[in-house]
Parts: sequence; structure tokens; C-alpha cells
Amino acid sequence: MARWEPNARERLVRAALDLFTEQGYDATTVNQIADRAGLTKTTFFRHFPDKREVLFAGQDIHARLLADGIAAAPATATPLEAVSAGLDALTASFRDERREFSARLRPVLAGHSELRERAVFKRVGLAAVMADALRERGVPEPTASLAAELGVRAFYQAFEQWADLTNGQTCTDLARIALAELRAATAALD
Amino acid sequence: MARWEPNARERLVRAALDLFTEQGYDATTVNQIADRAGLTKTTFFRHFPDKREVLFAGQDIHARLLADGIAAAPATATPLEAVSAGLDALTASFRDERREFSARLRPVLAGHSELRERAVFKRVGLAAVMADALRERGVPEPTASLAAELGVRAFYQAFEQWADLTNGQTCTDLARIALAELRAATAALD
Repeated sequence: MARWEPNARERLVRAALDLFTEQGYDATTVNQIADRAGLTKTTFFRHFPDKREVLFAGQDIHARLLADGIAAAPATATPLEAVSAGLDALTASFRDERREFSARLRPVLAGHSELRERAVFKRVGLAAVMADALRERGVPEPTASLAAELGVRAFYQAFEQWADLTNGQTCTDLARIALAELRAATAALD
Repeated sequence: MARWEPNARERLVRAALDLFTEQGYDATTVNQIADRAGLTKTTFFRHFPDKREVLFAGQDIHARLLADGIAAAPATATPLEAVSAGLDALTASFRDERREFSARLRPVLAGHSELRERAVFKRVGLAAVMADALRERGVPEPTASLAAELGVRAFYQAFEQWADLTNGQTCTDLARIALAELRAATAALD
């Protein structure tokens, strides 16, 4: 088998999600995922350290989109405006054709404590990346971390709504609405 | 060996931390922890499902203290005032004699990805408990979750400072200062 495999990463992700959905996460092996994708176990391990990480394949790309979006915001942008620019950059990558995939991913993640813990860890990682990007813009702590927290909350709320197939709005619009609601809520804290 | 063992839970926690510190988390077995505590493996498993959970033995108690503290705040308390009451109740349990233990726990947690992920999961759990307690008081979303997030941030910042043995302030004072700083930061978001 050739060393280079077209779309190997994406094929592995889709094969894993199919198998996790069909037979459960625990019952699925790396060999089965590679087989289903028409690839070898060696190819699997060139892309992922274990079967869990397959479901978090997008984390690095998501982190980069957020960081670059925040960095590219106008110099005059407030902390939350910079966060909003980061969310725009990230959510632009959530196109309609990925919606069904995301909808199928949710119950798999929710159904296993190991995956829920890993998902929480991804969330914390994305918040840290946003806070770093804000500090790079000169936003002091704890404002940077707080703005990042609002950003990550807005993103996950929007993503949940967007992955719900009955909702017709874009992920970008949903994230903007969620961020505006969170901004308003900060005024009600005391 | 008698079924009832005085302070079994605390003895297991201290034995586990000693062994994790001396020889590392991966190299330590449940048998070794039980031996060091002068207890049986069976007693260990009456208290904890696995060696990882030993380090998170306080989670349920911490959650209860936070929830009860928030519930007991005056009816006129704002969301952040109720959070502050919860933090007062929780941090009152962090007495000076626990400070050294906490200081030794930190590098163990930081040194292993499995433990870091579990610690993040605990943090999320405490935030959820605080948000629940605030909603019970009639605080709407997303204000309840946001106030809870500020509370959990203030708590962890205070705990980190308190566990630093060179710091002489109480955990309660440190948490109040941290919460006040976070409150001020919300005004700088935009």
C-alpha cells in the first residue's frame, strides 16, 4: 500500500464515527477503524495516537482559526469585538455539509465519560488560545481570560444549536447572537 | 481485619499522595496504596473506583459546601453576592493544616495529562453546581452560568495562591479579592 493516502485523516474520522455510532466506542478498535477506512493501522497511527483523539481531530485547526481571527481584528477593537472576530473566523469553517456529521458526533461524545472529559479539555484549550491571542493584543488579565470564556461559551452554544438539524441559521449568526446575550448578562451580575 | 477502619478514606488519600510523589502516578498501584495505608484492597475499593479518583475525594464535599452557601445567602443578594457566600462556605474548610497537603497535590496533578483532564472535569462540575444553585434562587441564564464561572475562577485562583506556602492570607480572603477583581474586569470587556 502506498505511503500517501488521499484524505486519510478525514476517512479515518468518518470511519471512526460510523463504528462508534453502530457498535459503541468501547467495542471499536483501531484495527476496525483502519479497515473501515480502507487503510492500515500504521496509517492510523501516523495521524492519531489512539481512537479517542480521532474525534478531536479538529482541535488544532479550530485553535488556529480563533487565534488568527483575534489577531486580525482592527487595533481599535474592544476585547469582545476581537473575540467576535475570532468566532467569525472559526464558525465560517462550519459549512452546511458538516452539519450532519456534527449532529452525529454529539451523542457519541455525550455517551462516554472518557469522551466528555476529553471534550471539556478541548474547550479549556480553545479558551486558553483565545486568552493568549487577546493578551498578545495588550488586553490585561483577568479581562483577557474572561473575554475568552465568553467567546468559548458563545461558540459552544452556537455549535449545539447549529448541529441541531432543524435549525436553519448559520453557525456564525448563532455565535454572534450568543455573544451578545452573554455581554448583556454581564450587566446583571450585580 | 475489621470491616470498619477509622479514617480509612483520609488514610488512603494521604498514602496515595505520598506514593505518587515518591515514585510517580503511573508506577503506583492500588495494592501499594492500600498497603501503605495499612488497609486492604477491598477497603480501597469501598471508597474509590480507581487510583485516579483518590485525588478527587473532596469533590462531592466541595460541591455541597458551595451549593449550601449559595442557597443560604440572603434573598436580597445579587448573583455575585450569592456566589461570594458560596465561596466563603467552601473556603472556610481550607484550614492551615491542609495547606501543606494542597501544596504537595499540585505538582502531582500538573504532572500527568490524565489527572489534568480529571481536574478540569472537577472544575466544570463545581461550576455546574454553582449555576444550579443560582438558578434555584431565580437567577436566569446565561447570568447564572456566568456568575458561577466567575466564582469558580475566583476559587481556583485563591486556592493556587493559598497552597503556595509563602502566602499567609486565608483562602477566604484570597477568594474575596479574586472575585472583586473579576467583577471589575467585566466592565472592561467592551
